[in-house]
Amino acid sequence: MSSARPLFVVAGLGNGSGTGAASARVFAKAGYRVALISRGPEHLSKLESEINQAGGEAKAFPVNDYTPSSIKSAFTSLKSQWPSSPLRVALFNAGHGVWKPFLDITEEEVRESIDTNVIAAFAFARETLLEFTKQDFEAESEGGVAGNTRKKGTLIFTGATAAIRGNTTTSAFAAGKFGIRALSQSLAKEFGKQNIHVAHSIIDGVIITDRVKSRRNDAEWEANQDVRLSPEAIANSYLYLVKQDSSALTWEIDLRPAHEKW
Amino acid sequence: MSSARPLFVVAGLGNGSGTGAASARVFAKAGYRVALISRGPEHLSKLESEINQAGGEAKAFPVNDYTPSSIKSAFTSLKSQWPSSPLRVALFNAGHGVWKPFLDITEEEVRESIDTNVIAAFAFARETLLEFTKQDFEAESEGGVAGNTRKKGTLIFTGATAAIRGNTTTSAFAAGKFGIRALSQSLAKEFGKQNIHVAHSIIDGVIITDRVKSRRNDAEWEANQDVRLSPEAIANSYLYLVKQDSSALTWEIDLRPAHEKW
Amino acid sequence: MSSARPLFVVAGLGNGSGTGAASARVFAKAGYRVALISRGPEHLSKLESEINQAGGEAKAFPVNDYTPSSIKSAFTSLKSQWPSSPLRVALFNAGHGVWKPFLDITEEEVRESIDTNVIAAFAFARETLLEFTKQDFEAESEGGVAGNTRKKGTLIFTGATAAIRGNTTTSAFAAGKFGIRALSQSLAKEFGKQNIHVAHSIIDGVIITDRVKSRRNDAEWEANQDVRLSPEAIANSYLYLVKQDSSALTWEIDLRPAHEKW
Amino acid sequence: MSSARPLFVVAGLGNGSGTGAASARVFAKAGYRVALISRGPEHLSKLESEINQAGGEAKAFPVNDYTPSSIKSAFTSLKSQWPSSPLRVALFNAGHGVWKPFLDITEEEVRESIDTNVIAAFAFARETLLEFTKQDFEAESEGGVAGNTRKKGTLIFTGATAAIRGNTTTSAFAAGKFGIRALSQSLAKEFGKQNIHVAHSIIDGVIITDRVKSRRNDAEWEANQDVRLSPEAIANSYLYLVKQDSSALTWEIDLRPAHEKW
Repeated sequence: MSSARPLFVVAGLGNGSGTGAASARVFAKAGYRVALISRGPEHLSKLESEINQAGGEAKAFPVNDYTPSSIKSAFTSLKSQWPSSPLRVALFNAGHGVWKPFLDITEEEVRESIDTNVIAAFAFARETLLEFTKQDFEAESEGGVAGNTRKKGTLIFTGATAAIRGNTTTSAFAAGKFGIRALSQSLAKEFGKQNIHVAHSIIDGVIITDRVKSRRNDAEWEANQDVRLSPEAIANSYLYLVKQDSSALTWEIDLRPAHEKW
Repeated sequence: MSSARPLFVVAGLGNGSGTGAASARVFAKAGYRVALISRGPEHLSKLESEINQAGGEAKAFPVNDYTPSSIKSAFTSLKSQWPSSPLRVALFNAGHGVWKPFLDITEEEVRESIDTNVIAAFAFARETLLEFTKQDFEAESEGGVAGNTRKKGTLIFTGATAAIRGNTTTSAFAAGKFGIRALSQSLAKEFGKQNIHVAHSIIDGVIITDRVKSRRNDAEWEANQDVRLSPEAIANSYLYLVKQDSSALTWEIDLRPAHEKW
Repeated sequence: MSSARPLFVVAGLGNGSGTGAASARVFAKAGYRVALISRGPEHLSKLESEINQAGGEAKAFPVNDYTPSSIKSAFTSLKSQWPSSPLRVALFNAGHGVWKPFLDITEEEVRESIDTNVIAAFAFARETLLEFTKQDFEAESEGGVAGNTRKKGTLIFTGATAAIRGNTTTSAFAAGKFGIRALSQSLAKEFGKQNIHVAHSIIDGVIITDRVKSRRNDAEWEANQDVRLSPEAIANSYLYLVKQDSSALTWEIDLRPAHEKW
Repeated sequence: MSSARPLFVVAGLGNGSGTGAASARVFAKAGYRVALISRGPEHLSKLESEINQAGGEAKAFPVNDYTPSSIKSAFTSLKSQWPSSPLRVALFNAGHGVWKPFLDITEEEVRESIDTNVIAAFAFARETLLEFTKQDFEAESEGGVAGNTRKKGTLIFTGATAAIRGNTTTSAFAAGKFGIRALSQSLAKEFGKQNIHVAHSIIDGVIITDRVKSRRNDAEWEANQDVRLSPEAIANSYLYLVKQDSSALTWEIDLRPAHEKW
């Protein structure tokens, strides 16, 4: 395959059954090289193998945490891994959640929520935009994978209902998700004129992951696509955003199951 | 072709060079029968011919105005035209704009803005939802055109920046567009549980239409997809919304050119 | 009392136990002449007497409906009643509510909701702004009642949660309230530079009125100011908005009881 | 004076000419004991003297930074200073601003913006709410200063336009201000049922402070209250929020000069 095949990078893969991992699979299938940044080296290595065995090209870049220096190191590694691949899509999918009454949240939990959401998102955006701004539009050697003849790259942030509405028990989580949303809107406005697409999703509902499955243990609920979000459906929406041409770009998209009460 | 081929209906086609017409072309190409509701019978007839000659199947249902009774008549006609086609997609794209200092807007202009936007949207939604709620999910005989095995239909409203922000000179226009947005959100919440998808777009920027082209008379601007919205790009976004499965539905999507200041 | 005493006009008084009537009482007490526009001449006449007996100066201007011509007539009457009183505060508090599943709402009900909310608000705003734009800042002869040495007048619209969020069963109501909000924001931006203050309230909760009292018949609920809005508290907020000086004006204010879930 | 006179605490006083200092003066005049938390001990000491000489009762609690431990220490000091004064009003007015193109913002600047806005606001809210939740409603010995017979206290956060809209050059600032807004809404919902009032202001425009005056050096602009916000006008709005009774509480209020373009 072409040495200039485009690159997709994602941060935040959990145990490999959620939005980040589904996006890695979907973009690998679409022809991207896939760089996987996450904690939990075992899950990461398993996902890497799975994608490679399915005919994709993935590589794991494990991190111990989402500090700016860890994120910077991961980007340095992935660029040296694929020096001739242009970075075309970056997905920030990390960020811890904490749901507790305000006075039960410790100083450390506030800090962790803010660091893994906001501080990490800033660092991830910085590494991504340093690449995007250096690049030109899609080259022929990329084989039309990105399909963006007028976009230098797409940076997507996974958000949540808590990105637009604070609620009881969500103070620390909402502060993190509001912060990411602010960043994404600022960047969309600042970098649009350089033909860089920045988008933000509002995931409004429960995503069906391994963890949720084992917690709920409810086969009927799992089988009913009307009541929960599938990671693949979210990933397909991200692929659609990437395929948008520069005439009509979306900053924000909300996604929820048909039967969700909102 | 199958007698049960699905139906796409659109209201508001202007002179055939904007969002409504582009959507008609895109959905015709995607395999839908296309029902065209609009004023201006000549433009309408021209668009009908164009789509049919291109291998699509379109029929014009001209109206004198967008009163509820005119809209109802058009739906009666289109259902008798294609009695075995399930209605799967409806696009409300009508609504006059008026941009004037508030004290210069006449009572008649307020009335016209409200009637062609809000009252017409209610009537269009009513006819659409009466059909959607009677229908079941996509049948095999539809040939997989809609691709929504868990959706009864998709109702889309074209909105504008004025749907989320009032401004000087936009009072009458914004009141109409805010009203449509309120309707669309109410319907999305009410009919989601019946697997009916209701969506709203925020078109934030200038759409390149014949009228705009002749007013601006600027070939460079026309050629630059980064500075204006193309109707086809909007239409493609609508097709994407229709293809979303019931696990992850979008209510609202914003669309703007890459270089738009917002 | 000074012949130039300032004027407060309110449209929408129900049976005299809600927000409009409480505002009339509060502004009468604050020194305004009070013009009462509403349907239901008996309730209107009772409120007029009550305010006059309490030492205020009120006059009823009954209307049969909230059409633009009825509103215009009422303004003509009130100006001829008090030719030397400058209009300083106008409160639009009218607008029918309809809460029904969408397909149960008739064409007439949609029309009535839109007319009594949006169309009426436009007409009321027009009459008010024709006066405000003709006037100068507060004169000495007004006795400092308005207290706005740098404001020509204040126009307030009573809104509701349905002004910012559509919901199941609120389609017609929300379309009306969203429309009023759009109008109010457009006017705030357009007329701010003429030192005219336009504001919008979001009343988020149940207001304690005679009708609500008799429906609920729950003395404990009535007595508990933490669970329902009192019309007087809302009226006091309106008086505060009027007193704001031109250095720091509020367009939108939300009001809800302490224990409201939102 | 009563030993139970209520307490007002404010964090963020700059050089004593902005919103925080104006609020300290306004609340001191209204009868509150005033605790001043800020960096810059000289400015702080000057403001303390000024308020005390004007007949108020103020005390400075200088901090080196707005870390949680510094904020906690300041609260410990102020409580031991006035052990019998109930804390009734707390104003968080701190938070650095940084306005730069995204790629020019250093990791340290992101961190400082997030820490002085979000992390500091969490710590300030924690200390405040630990007090509020222990207290009962206003006692007779408070002399009716707070005037809230059904409120335990009011916690106000000063926000900005950047709290609701990201823009080019505002990424770090907006992330901080969005975060504070998320916190304030979460707290308003969580603590409303305990009769604790949490509010957020959106200051939309330039506030006239010493720094702005010397930078602009424009006497006409200074004299024109229609074009800039006066800190006193903002402070008066905060006093109004504090006086709201529990029947109709405001979470969010926007404030801008009459001639502001928005």
